[in-house]
Amino acid sequence: MSGNTLGTLFTVTNFGESHGPAIGCVIDGCPPGLALSEADIQADLDRRRPGTSRHVTQRAEPDQVEILSGVYEGRTTGTPIALLIRNTDQRSKDYSAIADSFRPGHADYACWHKYGLRDPRGGGRSSARLTAPTVAAGAVARQWLAERHGTVVRGCMTQVGEVAIPFESWEHVPHNPFFAPVADVSALEDYMDALRKAGDSCGARLRVVASHVPVGLGEPLYDKLDADIAHVMMGLNAVKAVEIGAGFASVAQRGTVHGDALTPQGFASNNAGGIVGGISTGQDIEVSIGIKPTSSIISPRQSIDTAGRPVEVVTKGRHDPCVGIRATPIAEALLALVLIDHALRHRAQCGDVVAAVPPIAASAG
Amino acid sequence: MSGNTLGTLFTVTNFGESHGPAIGCVIDGCPPGLALSEADIQADLDRRRPGTSRHVTQRAEPDQVEILSGVYEGRTTGTPIALLIRNTDQRSKDYSAIADSFRPGHADYACWHKYGLRDPRGGGRSSARLTAPTVAAGAVARQWLAERHGTVVRGCMTQVGEVAIPFESWEHVPHNPFFAPVADVSALEDYMDALRKAGDSCGARLRVVASHVPVGLGEPLYDKLDADIAHVMMGLNAVKAVEIGAGFASVAQRGTVHGDALTPQGFASNNAGGIVGGISTGQDIEVSIGIKPTSSIISPRQSIDTAGRPVEVVTKGRHDPCVGIRATPIAEALLALVLIDHALRHRAQCGDVVAAVPPIAASAG
Amino acid sequence: MSGNTLGTLFTVTNFGESHGPAIGCVIDGCPPGLALSEADIQADLDRRRPGTSRHVTQRAEPDQVEILSGVYEGRTTGTPIALLIRNTDQRSKDYSAIADSFRPGHADYACWHKYGLRDPRGGGRSSARLTAPTVAAGAVARQWLAERHGTVVRGCMTQVGEVAIPFESWEHVPHNPFFAPVADVSALEDYMDALRKAGDSCGARLRVVASHVPVGLGEPLYDKLDADIAHVMMGLNAVKAVEIGAGFASVAQRGTVHGDALTPQGFASNNAGGIVGGISTGQDIEVSIGIKPTSSIISPRQSIDTAGRPVEVVTKGRHDPCVGIRATPIAEALLALVLIDHALRHRAQCGDVVAAVPPIAASAG
Amino acid sequence: MSGNTLGTLFTVTNFGESHGPAIGCVIDGCPPGLALSEADIQADLDRRRPGTSRHVTQRAEPDQVEILSGVYEGRTTGTPIALLIRNTDQRSKDYSAIADSFRPGHADYACWHKYGLRDPRGGGRSSARLTAPTVAAGAVARQWLAERHGTVVRGCMTQVGEVAIPFESWEHVPHNPFFAPVADVSALEDYMDALRKAGDSCGARLRVVASHVPVGLGEPLYDKLDADIAHVMMGLNAVKAVEIGAGFASVAQRGTVHGDALTPQGFASNNAGGIVGGISTGQDIEVSIGIKPTSSIISPRQSIDTAGRPVEVVTKGRHDPCVGIRATPIAEALLALVLIDHALRHRAQCGDVVAAVPPIAASAG
Repeated sequence: MSGNTLGTLFTVTNFGESHGPAIGCVIDGCPPGLALSEADIQADLDRRRPGTSRHVTQRAEPDQVEILSGVYEGRTTGTPIALLIRNTDQRSKDYSAIADSFRPGHADYACWHKYGLRDPRGGGRSSARLTAPTVAAGAVARQWLAERHGTVVRGCMTQVGEVAIPFESWEHVPHNPFFAPVADVSALEDYMDALRKAGDSCGARLRVVASHVPVGLGEPLYDKLDADIAHVMMGLNAVKAVEIGAGFASVAQRGTVHGDALTPQGFASNNAGGIVGGISTGQDIEVSIGIKPTSSIISPRQSIDTAGRPVEVVTKGRHDPCVGIRATPIAEALLALVLIDHALRHRAQCGDVVAAVPPIAASAG
Repeated sequence: MSGNTLGTLFTVTNFGESHGPAIGCVIDGCPPGLALSEADIQADLDRRRPGTSRHVTQRAEPDQVEILSGVYEGRTTGTPIALLIRNTDQRSKDYSAIADSFRPGHADYACWHKYGLRDPRGGGRSSARLTAPTVAAGAVARQWLAERHGTVVRGCMTQVGEVAIPFESWEHVPHNPFFAPVADVSALEDYMDALRKAGDSCGARLRVVASHVPVGLGEPLYDKLDADIAHVMMGLNAVKAVEIGAGFASVAQRGTVHGDALTPQGFASNNAGGIVGGISTGQDIEVSIGIKPTSSIISPRQSIDTAGRPVEVVTKGRHDPCVGIRATPIAEALLALVLIDHALRHRAQCGDVVAAVPPIAASAG
Repeated sequence: MSGNTLGTLFTVTNFGESHGPAIGCVIDGCPPGLALSEADIQADLDRRRPGTSRHVTQRAEPDQVEILSGVYEGRTTGTPIALLIRNTDQRSKDYSAIADSFRPGHADYACWHKYGLRDPRGGGRSSARLTAPTVAAGAVARQWLAERHGTVVRGCMTQVGEVAIPFESWEHVPHNPFFAPVADVSALEDYMDALRKAGDSCGARLRVVASHVPVGLGEPLYDKLDADIAHVMMGLNAVKAVEIGAGFASVAQRGTVHGDALTPQGFASNNAGGIVGGISTGQDIEVSIGIKPTSSIISPRQSIDTAGRPVEVVTKGRHDPCVGIRATPIAEALLALVLIDHALRHRAQCGDVVAAVPPIAASAG
Repeated sequence: MSGNTLGTLFTVTNFGESHGPAIGCVIDGCPPGLALSEADIQADLDRRRPGTSRHVTQRAEPDQVEILSGVYEGRTTGTPIALLIRNTDQRSKDYSAIADSFRPGHADYACWHKYGLRDPRGGGRSSARLTAPTVAAGAVARQWLAERHGTVVRGCMTQVGEVAIPFESWEHVPHNPFFAPVADVSALEDYMDALRKAGDSCGARLRVVASHVPVGLGEPLYDKLDADIAHVMMGLNAVKAVEIGAGFASVAQRGTVHGDALTPQGFASNNAGGIVGGISTGQDIEVSIGIKPTSSIISPRQSIDTAGRPVEVVTKGRHDPCVGIRATPIAEALLALVLIDHALRHRAQCGDVVAAVPPIAASAG
């Protein structure tokens, strides 16, 4: 257990390196009887796949998923679901050059000190490619959440570099390569084109929302729902910040403003982001994350080699100039994985609880 | 396992309610041979104790800790360390009135739906009082980290409500009730006095820093060091946002700026906040958290009762107008708990790794 | 997490030393709404209490339990249930003599090498006294199992030393100090009296049975129900052997005999001991355990001291001549703890499963 | 987490069904830098492979292992090691007939009630075939234990049906299909031939021994080394009984006989089986297990179908008449997996402990 398993009851064990033979995961704890096919999973994988626009890495990975176990006659059996994705675009080359120096902002240096060695092929285990199995597992989670609770998990980009992106509609998100909730993304395209020409990279901010989440999910004291959401989000490659609901803005709010009033018609506001005291309230769960600029850039950087001598490092290869662009489906998957895990945990302990009255509406509006 | 245990190898199991007979925790996995006394723990508990200034709740809880097990002749034995804190200021009163309505911004509503009942005494399990055992456990973690690795964990307040607090020096922190790193806190006192008179509450932003952290801590993919830090910080009562290093500011940074250059003399900057790829680099670990305003305020709020009827709620009692004020020692404790847990996890797997060259300095300066 | 927590969802974290200030445990994950009082728990504790007959240790420990948390107005709230038992009979004496030598058959030697030190007071953490919190937690488990599923867990002694004890009736068990299912225990009393006079000790064999266990409990591949039962039983102090159902006798059985036939009226036999493929079948769960003779005997034994020099060791103090005598309520508690944990685990994953037809009867008879 | 992960720090997550596309496992937590190749693992897999003698199932599964990740340039990297074994001998046939009735002694009935469905292909998840990934993972564990501690894990058969097998020498074990420690196995062959002709099956008893185990492994209270050994052994398909050291024989032993005396030259006996108080003593760890007769026999059995009606069941197909025959390498693998897990757990907590004097010899002889 070196940190490659996510979850308590619905667990995802991730394996593989970017340029090894295959990547994948094993899901344990999925409820039996859920309709599931490779096509269901492939749809989400295709959303994060590289090479789909000029703004992302041009690596051509089909990311074709194979279900190895746990599904029989189109339904989950309750046994482990192993998902396999063969790597196909591992360009054969000599890694010995870059294997001897550390890229600034990369895990190279820390990995080498931790393990006494490192797998330099394409970033090895630190590659964002390892989010593919997470997305695949998330697709299973989403399917169950939708069927069992009607839960919908959606995400979009709200900022790229310095450019804030207003929220127009969820409708626009699938129709542009940025997952931006706007009809016209020409400004974003110009921004990214200029950045790419400059040989530089930028960060991004994303918003992820889960609707129709049952009230009562979350396990205080330490495994609060927001704590577990923060865990997975901060664990997403390149994420440096996480907010729930009003987030940092709540620092300057007054108590008379921040606390969401309850009415017989529903909640009057959602500063809490759907979670109070670490437990879901039934409102939309609102998460915002900040992603740093890609470290793999072609501009030369000052660094050292494994002997401690100063070197200049240039990262060649096909890298995303903004890793945030492809991160939306990953963040959605992570939120879905936390929700299914907590839905099962809640059912385990409180499966017999009968509330005296039904929950109020998510919104009074 | 309903979320009341923190950690993987150095575990803290927390118990108790705000107004029950006692609160406390059981620490399992502490290395044997560590010098430990009740006085060592009491020092940290006293830093978060209520009633120490007019800006915090006036409840008088001595929070006297008793070591029930795991220590023999002044040293830890490697067996569980049980810590007990008796509650002394449980004002006897009738809770039936507030037991029937839900306070906006409180866990009341969600708890009641989750468990089918709730313990209304002083907020029960949702009370910030339950952070006391966490602080006590953190004191044990800090002692080991300091002895074994020279690690120092420090925190301070950087904003209260709308008022930003500049960083002057760590020296000032112990000398004012706000844990503010400034010599003159009169502006903060005036701000809090006005707020209290208005019957309102405000949020706060804190910074927590760990220095002399060994390189190599963190377990990618999912249990990255920053992921686990985000988990504990977001799990702290009232926290709505967490940043590591440059945090949300990294969204607008360019890759050429964000990536911290390595030099033979040390790292040239620390945008990473001491963690890259989920693994510590040896630099200072920099965390920032945003805390919402206290929900328990004397101003009347709109809400509903357990029958779903509209009611007006006023929270009486002795509450902190800004829970962020006493949160600094708690955040420090949480960071220390994550670090000791990862130090032990790292040792388990990589205890035989010998690095070819020593780590570089945390800072080139 | 140094092994002091039992269970996955219904967890028991045990703390304390035999001669420290207190022992106890924290139960996390208990379903809310269960009726629970200290008297409910005390009843089971009293069954394993020392000093109740001349055949067990004459230490006078009242083992009075105090519920510190998790219960409000006579019902569990779903939050951690902390149980505290103060030690009262810690005879104050100088342990330095025995602290320097190792008792054969004791954990002294292994503990000293493991932790680099040991707590010699009354056997410290290795004392059978630490089973008291397990029994207390088991009482909570039994209460829930009885209320929710009608499950009954019972145990009895089937052999003491060379003396086999026939099964007459469960009725007799509470009426003799051996938990023997026979009306006349005079032979057992004579045997034990002779043994005590000889300054020696003997082993025992116990049987534990759970009836009215729902079909479907157990998590193959690795957390099979029988695997988890074997885990807790072998972990009981002094246990050296565990059998489920026909146990070792099944080695010489033929397949045509061993497999329990299913009929519309119920199972025709129970060689499986209620578990097949690691999953409960609805039949009685049948467990048998073998307990070694007490190591603390007044006869002198050959050993070494901490400097590696040969010494002769005599264990004074008040010890059980047959630890198996008081082990029945402990084994029952352990079985109950495994069952509640698996009932909750099963509900988490399979809570929506509806069987097409009802289970058959446990027995065709 | 539905029980398909074994271990706490060195974890094995098992997946696959007998007649699905593939089986395998993911190992997480393996120390980095260990020399490892597919050939190292294949050697152990070949020992448990079917079809190697007339006394075992004639299924032809090559059980060829592929390392998908975690190894780079012949050494483990510290990241997850995924092992894949493609199924090749899945005879295509109609399972609908047997899918409607339950085989006595099989997991069919319990699985169907647990999951609401079952995968009838070749026994699905309940098949002994799923022990192959466990054996593969055990090979990795053995390699590390041998290199780091010089630990050797060996097993042999000590009884088949009614026939006890004397221990002559470990030398004989690899030279006969029974893993019997005798030179002449003609009596065993005759016994098995007669059994096969009778269309029946029988059980077996195995002994597994680990030598050169460091003193100090095991985590009392609940995760004692013997408890965890009992857990994995009872979890092995068809096992109904587990003994450590003297096992059930210790019931009739006196304390003066059972406790193993310590001398400066080493331990004088090993009734403890190398574990006292749940912690290894440095002596050989001695385990004995009892395995029930195979349930899949061609003799007709009385049973019911999924509608609850009486039916007669005959199991066709290629089954082992004594599953115990191929179980020796599996039991060895399981013991190795427990030992490496505890070696890492011990190092995590007690990595700084320095014993004052070296351990004594395993045996005084």
